Order: sequence, then structure tokens, then C-alpha cells
Amino acid sequence: MKRRERLRRVKLALAARRADALLVLSPENRRYLSGFPPLDVSLTESSGALLITRREQFLLTDPRYREEAKECAPLFEPVIYERGLFAKLKELAPLLGLKRLLFEELYLSVAGEKALRKALPEVEHLGVRGLVEGLREVKDDEEIGLLRKALEIAEEIMTRAESLIRPGVSEKEIAAEIIALSHRLAEGPSFPPIVASGVYAARPHAEPSEKELKPGEPVILDLGVRYQGYCSDITRTFCVGEPTPRFRKIYLLVLEAKRAAEKEIAAGVPARRADLAAREVFRRAGLEAHFWHSLGHGVGLAVHEAPALSRRQRRRLKAGHVVTVEPGLYFPDWGGVRLEDMVVVREGGFERLNRLGFLFEA
Amino acid sequence: MKRRERLRRVKLALAARRADALLVLSPENRRYLSGFPPLDVSLTESSGALLITRREQFLLTDPRYREEAKECAPLFEPVIYERGLFAKLKELAPLLGLKRLLFEELYLSVAGEKALRKALPEVEHLGVRGLVEGLREVKDDEEIGLLRKALEIAEEIMTRAESLIRPGVSEKEIAAEIIALSHRLAEGPSFPPIVASGVYAARPHAEPSEKELKPGEPVILDLGVRYQGYCSDITRTFCVGEPTPRFRKIYLLVLEAKRAAEKEIAAGVPARRADLAAREVFRRAGLEAHFWHSLGHGVGLAVHEAPALSRRQRRRLKAGHVVTVEPGLYFPDWGGVRLEDMVVVREGGFERLNRLGFLFEA
Repeated sequence: MKRRERLRRVKLALAARRADALLVLSPENRRYLSGFPPLDVSLTESSGALLITRREQFLLTDPRYREEAKECAPLFEPVIYERGLFAKLKELAPLLGLKRLLFEELYLSVAGEKALRKALPEVEHLGVRGLVEGLREVKDDEEIGLLRKALEIAEEIMTRAESLIRPGVSEKEIAAEIIALSHRLAEGPSFPPIVASGVYAARPHAEPSEKELKPGEPVILDLGVRYQGYCSDITRTFCVGEPTPRFRKIYLLVLEAKRAAEKEIAAGVPARRADLAAREVFRRAGLEAHFWHSLGHGVGLAVHEAPALSRRQRRRLKAGHVVTVEPGLYFPDWGGVRLEDMVVVREGGFERLNRLGFLFEA
Repeated sequence: MKRRERLRRVKLALAARRADALLVLSPENRRYLSGFPPLDVSLTESSGALLITRREQFLLTDPRYREEAKECAPLFEPVIYERGLFAKLKELAPLLGLKRLLFEELYLSVAGEKALRKALPEVEHLGVRGLVEGLREVKDDEEIGLLRKALEIAEEIMTRAESLIRPGVSEKEIAAEIIALSHRLAEGPSFPPIVASGVYAARPHAEPSEKELKPGEPVILDLGVRYQGYCSDITRTFCVGEPTPRFRKIYLLVLEAKRAAEKEIAAGVPARRADLAAREVFRRAGLEAHFWHSLGHGVGLAVHEAPALSRRQRRRLKAGHVVTVEPGLYFPDWGGVRLEDMVVVREGGFERLNRLGFLFEA
């Protein structure tokens, strides 16, 4: 879907909700609709907002992003604020005749809403969620191309990181190299990479530590990059030195679960089926309790987005959804194995975006 | 101030506001009070919350952080939630007899507040801000030691980055090296580093680009790391190749402004005086309009925190405040120069935390 079509759909949603405008605060939604690339530096430091009325669209940002606003968001009129977003909205609201304003309630703080209410006391404002995220769920071919490219770079980094695995190297050293490569080859990591070895591999999101790798330990590498805003996400697990029989056994079971899950992925199938299929493989091995998280999640401009592949997800998959498939087994006294690919949901099945293989084949 | 004393002060604030508990959502406040280190991956993905009642304190987090919760926050009772923070609060509220709950309004989204209201319909909840941030403003000797260490590492990285400056190298390559070193030598960057050359150096927060450095251009490097949670922030400006006369002239003027500003830094002095002193140096040179931002900001567990050193800041500095001093001059057709140090406010003056010098001396 081209940017103009995305905007048209937002405006249809405005009309349907009898609203005059939408204030877009999510960095991913901002980029999806306008092309404006900055992320937000922290929870309390926004790079700007889009104000989309039924007729026009504005990119409101501060002087730091004056040039980016002009260059990257050609469909939007740049509006630079010196004294903050809400002061600028106060100026604009009467000029635009705003009476009923929608805002993204996941991305405005309670303090922000107080400021909005104070700046626009006459304007009714309503929190919405999922309005733009809903448009983002199904990816078109151009977006799938960017996700493929982001994954290709992540696989290159995975291969280089694998070559660093040896006894004595620390988790942090490998993570630092992954991060440096992510900045050299792409726009940076799509999330802080995980390098988790030995018992730390049983903590699904452990921070890379000073711990050094030891022979026979499992090492989970979970990484991804951003490419033109689009995120990749891949996990591989390696064994330091020669794979042990226990490692091999668990690895093959996780791979079996992954393949069982993928068989359930196709347009029209409820998203929970894939999760349940992986869980069933583990259940038969008596290890269901060692799979602690959901099977996967959507990936796009955000590294985690809809749809979730979880036991509780009743929605059906659609052609063009891009999701991760990432079963894992974790043992606090030993470590864990997780294997993660990205796949596109298609009519009648799925397309794997990865090219990288596995250590063993089932 | 030890963690026990910090908690005691929070509990005094609860009593003063006749509240039963405070829900702490800011990652920096979480770490300050408990020691729990995870940051939040994104606006919508929290690593947990502290619930501090008048008698007890709990660290609520998800299973990913089970081990960190136990190991890093000894004064807090870990509570692991499988179905989200609000479902767990719903269980806890009657057990703890919560009737009036404070929450951090800068760190809870409007959607989050809706969920809170739904989970705890009987509990009055009130947004607060600055309650914990106020405690964090004045740093004790241990914190200043950590900030000094974080800055020492940043200066080491600055020196190594300077050695990469030569015609033909890209901004992104230098930024990637800064980021890699930040992860190798510390807990990572405290903010995305700025490497801005030529006309890009006139954009205060430009993203590092593919642009290659050219002889005679100014290059601004603005970087910092996190060390045990504490942030450093330093800026130096270099000239590619031999410094040009224009570069030297502007550099010396910025350095003069920096020193004029520092003379106004002491406990009891209004924070705006330092900003105005720098601005006065530029005004006398007819260049005030080329200084586009405030003089500086507090630094601690957050890279930007109170107090701001700005024209509009009427508050007085206190002994133990740690602030940046970072005047700059920017020319869209040429580039810019910014120089930034970190200083501790003391009785009767200030202490510079930096050791690194400057290219020229005024």
C-alpha cells in the first residue's frame, strides 16, 4: 500500500468515527504514514507527531529535525515547534477547526493527556489504538522485500557471530560485535541482541554478561537489524566446541516443534494453532513446562507487532502477515535452545524468509 | 543516600499525600530505588514496576526477569506476573488494603491508566511526577564516583574515535565503532552517539549518515556510556585535517562561552545564570542567534534529567547536582562547534569531572 493509500484509509477511519483529526505519536506509525525516520530516544523524549485531518497532514517536530522533516516526509507539511507539541497544537486547533481529535492512547502518557486537555480545552479528545497498526499488519511486496533484506543482513551477522564462539570469549564481546555490525551493515539493531550461554541460556531475555563461554555449553544468539525502518529477528543456538548428546537431542526436538508449528501456518488458520502444534511436540516428550513463552509474533516496522502466535490468540492469520516462529526449551540447571525464523503467511501455506540452515537436520 | 534511605523518603511522601502505595514505572526510578537494572525495550514494553506501600515493597516483573529480580533487588520482594502487571495488581490490591494509589504519570500511557482503572475499580489512583526524580537530583559521593567512571570510559572512547577521523571515513563507521566500544567497555551507549560532519554539524541531533568526511570540515562527536546505570555525556568537535582559521575562531569562542558559563555555577545560584553567561559571550560577537539550544542538563541514571540549565530555569543549583555545560554555535552553510563537559555543583563553585582537554586554549 502506497503512502497516499495509507493516508486515505486513515481519513476514512476519521470520517467513520466522526473525528476531525488523528494525532499519531507512535514512532513506527509516524514512519509508516509519513516516512519520517527518527525513533524516540526515551519514554519521555518524542521526536514529533503527525496531525492528520480529513484534508491535510502535518508533521510536527522540534528544530533538531527540521531538515529530516522536509526531506523524508514529502506528503506532510512540516511544522516546527520551539515550545513543545502542545503549545503548537493550541495554535493550530482553531485554524483547522478541530472539534473532535483522536490520539494514540498507547503512546500518550497520562501527563501528556493532561497537557493536551489544558492546551485544547474546547476540543473533545479520544484515545484510540490499533487504527494505524491495523493497516500495518498485512505487508505488501515492497515491505516484504525490505524485511527480507533486513533478515539477510541479520543472517550475515549471525554467521560472523557464530565464528566468534569459542571457550574464553565473553557474552558481552560477542554482543558488542553484533551491535557494531548492525550499525555498519544496517540502521542498527532492531532490539538489544541476546547472547546467553550456559545456565543464562535458560533466561529467555538475559542481558549479555561478562561471563565467558565454556566448552560444551549451549549459546543462544538472538538478534536483528533495522533496514529502512523494517526489523529482522532471528535466533540460533550453538554449542561451544563439540555438541554434546544432550544439546543435540534438545536441538532436534526444538527443530521438530518448529516444523510442526510451521505446518499450521496459512491464511485463514487461527493463529493459536501453530503455537499449540509446537507445544504438542514438547508435551509428547514430557517437556511442555520447559517452553516458557509464546511461539512467535508479527514483525514489521516494530520488532514485536500483531499478530501474536500464542495459545490465546483466536484471530486468524492473513496472507501477508509476517511472523516469527521461535520455539525453545529451557532448563535452569543447564541452559536452553531456541530456534527462530521469519515467515510470510500465504494462501495455503507459508514462505520462509530465512536462508540460513540449522546445525542438525531432523 | 543508601537505598534504605531512599525508600524511607518515598514512604514519607506516601504518608504526606495520604496514599497507601506508589507504583514506580520509570526504568531509572525503578533502578534507583531497587537496583533492578533492565531498561524498557520500547514505549509499550515495560520490564516491570515497583509497588511501594508504607510497610513493604514489591518488584513486579515477568518471568523473563525472574532471576534478575531476585539477585539485583534485595530489598524488594519479587512478584512474577504471567498475565500482565494489571492482573497482578488486581490480586495484590485487596491483600495490601490499597485504597489510594499514586502512579508515575509520565510513564503510564492513557491505555495503561484505563487498564489500571479497570483492574482496580475501587482504588483511587492519582498521577504524580517528580516524586522519585526529586530524590535523584542531588548525587552522593558514590553516585558521583559512578558518573566519573562513566565519563572516564566515554573520554577513552572519544580519544579512540578522534583517531578515526580522516577524509573518506563515513559518519556511520565512526558511530558504529563508538557504539561497539560502549558495549565492550561499559553497559552500552547512554544515547545514540552523534557523529555530524560538515553542514550536518549544524543539525544538533543529526543521525550519523553514510556521508564521508572531507578535509577542512568540522566534525561533532557527542557520546556517552552507561556504567552501573549511570550515564556520561561528552562532546568534542574536531576539524578533518588541519584546522581552518574559521574553525579555530569559532572553537575558541565556544570555549570562551563555556568558561564564562562555568563561572556562574555554584550552589545557590539560579540555574539560568550559566546559560545567560554563555549567551552573552555569543551576543557580544553578534552570534547569539547561532546558539540554538539550552546550555546543559542534569545527568545521572538518565542522560537528561533535572536540573536544566536554560534561560527559563528559575530554580537554584544545589551542591551535588551534576550537569552538562555544552554551548555550541551552528551555521547551516558550514557546520558547527559544540563542546561539552560534565561538572558537579559545589558550595562556592563547581568541580569539572572531565580530564580530557581541548584542541586550543583560549
